[in-house]
Amino acid sequence: MSVWIECVPNISEGRDPAQVEKVVAAVKAVPGITWLDLSSDADHHRSVLTFLGDAQALEQAVLAMFEAVAGFIDLGQHQGNHPRMGAVDVVPFIPIRNATIADCVALSKRVGEQVAARFGVPVTLYEHSASAPHRRNLAAVRKGEFEGLAQKLQEAEWRPDFGPAAPHPKLGAVAMGAREALVAYNIYLGTQDLSIAKAIAAAIRGSSGGLAHVKALGIDIPERQQVQVSMNLVDFRKNPLYRVVNLVRSEAQRWGVPVTSTEIVGLVPQDALLEAAAYHLQLEGYSPALVLENRIADAMAAAAKEA
Amino acid sequence: MSVWIECVPNISEGRDPAQVEKVVAAVKAVPGITWLDLSSDADHHRSVLTFLGDAQALEQAVLAMFEAVAGFIDLGQHQGNHPRMGAVDVVPFIPIRNATIADCVALSKRVGEQVAARFGVPVTLYEHSASAPHRRNLAAVRKGEFEGLAQKLQEAEWRPDFGPAAPHPKLGAVAMGAREALVAYNIYLGTQDLSIAKAIAAAIRGSSGGLAHVKALGIDIPERQQVQVSMNLVDFRKNPLYRVVNLVRSEAQRWGVPVTSTEIVGLVPQDALLEAAAYHLQLEGYSPALVLENRIADAMAAAAKEA
Repeated sequence: MSVWIECVPNISEGRDPAQVEKVVAAVKAVPGITWLDLSSDADHHRSVLTFLGDAQALEQAVLAMFEAVAGFIDLGQHQGNHPRMGAVDVVPFIPIRNATIADCVALSKRVGEQVAARFGVPVTLYEHSASAPHRRNLAAVRKGEFEGLAQKLQEAEWRPDFGPAAPHPKLGAVAMGAREALVAYNIYLGTQDLSIAKAIAAAIRGSSGGLAHVKALGIDIPERQQVQVSMNLVDFRKNPLYRVVNLVRSEAQRWGVPVTSTEIVGLVPQDALLEAAAYHLQLEGYSPALVLENRIADAMAAAAKEA
Repeated sequence: MSVWIECVPNISEGRDPAQVEKVVAAVKAVPGITWLDLSSDADHHRSVLTFLGDAQALEQAVLAMFEAVAGFIDLGQHQGNHPRMGAVDVVPFIPIRNATIADCVALSKRVGEQVAARFGVPVTLYEHSASAPHRRNLAAVRKGEFEGLAQKLQEAEWRPDFGPAAPHPKLGAVAMGAREALVAYNIYLGTQDLSIAKAIAAAIRGSSGGLAHVKALGIDIPERQQVQVSMNLVDFRKNPLYRVVNLVRSEAQRWGVPVTSTEIVGLVPQDALLEAAAYHLQLEGYSPALVLENRIADAMAAAAKEA
């Protein structure tokens, strides 16, 4: 069974394509890495890299990425619109196939320990890897940014998990952790009444007592003459799409309002959709291994490994 | 370009794992075969094998499978809930990648000719390989089962395409042909009344006026104290799973009987499940390109091409 873990590091360079290309090349050169995407933003002065591999390949790739970044990014000289605390700012590991969150937590700790040892960069574990609940949220870990690090890392509750309790002069610090893939999911309602979308959003989101892993807002979509419940599902395994849409339908009934359609923004993990299929079909013993294409992909990967 | 043709033979042994394992081992031993799945059913007394290869590998694998089956299955001694006419009952070839239905038709004829010559088993071509329209449907080819073969094979319109016009005493006869991917799908009902499963099967199957691409039987599953609507969906794009289960639910309401669960036998193409998800979620603009893993597979195929 081939293991697919996605890694989506953010680096603090979004203006010089030649420099970014050096980092990309260093990652691509690691055996077992499948390159997926690069997205650079000059305003944010930041690039998002997306690649895939098993734990061993990703460990090498992240170290190679630090090596390349250390060659040219100096965070003391860096200004951009996006909050950042490191040259490599954040390194999330996301289980895609044949890997669990626990696997990704273990991987983030292993890689974090090595990054600290080899580069002298303080590493703070976040999300599922966090060593305490208050360190789970990335925004909290990054608050104060590079400029505030020297003081923050001295505080007992923000001491890094690995490396020195002081920022690296050029590389700053890095957040590493395991998280689930995020699904951006919108539900359209058959009404123009924004207060209904807001009431439903409030009923279903975790922050106001609804489903723990759902973030939701009511939004007006004037060009469609409709309102929308706009959501981020931050753990689609614990709060699956089918349950979210069923709950929204059931809340909407209170006002006699139908769900007219839904949409996914960006990409969605196969499991998130297959879970909805399994629910609707009442499938017994459903597993992704039932899917022909998954077996073929595994068989191809196994054959490639043997060859 | 590697050619991927799927082969899904059904053999009339579902109760003795050791015997089935001999057949599996014979297939796996053939170079170029990628093994995908085995699913055995004791009630049906039947096993479904799923493997993949190019035409040359599949030709050898099917002959090896007949050799293994001839060593122990005696259809004269066989009783099970599923209609059958052969020890190897049916051998479909399905184009997956870099292969067409025409390639699979040619392959079925080449393999059929050799099976008839080497084992003295009558071979009837079906589906896209059929030599006449009335021979296309597997249920029609198999009607009368093993017990009725001696007479049927003498009839002008049912003479086999290859081999003697008489059943092999132990192996019976075999249907071979090219077809599109099939989904074997069973729906369990919350009742032990077989007449209800039979009435629902009759209402939904194409042969009695229901959905054109659905084949259905009502079957008793005594060890679960339930009955089942057992189906083959021969074109899941035209008759999607969600519509089939919705129709069965709606028919079952007539008797106040619930659908308790459903099951997929063997493997299922991703699209068949994703269509059910899109239905349940009322997804706008759904396409397989929304699925992260499909993008990953594309990236991997592109990388493999470069290498």
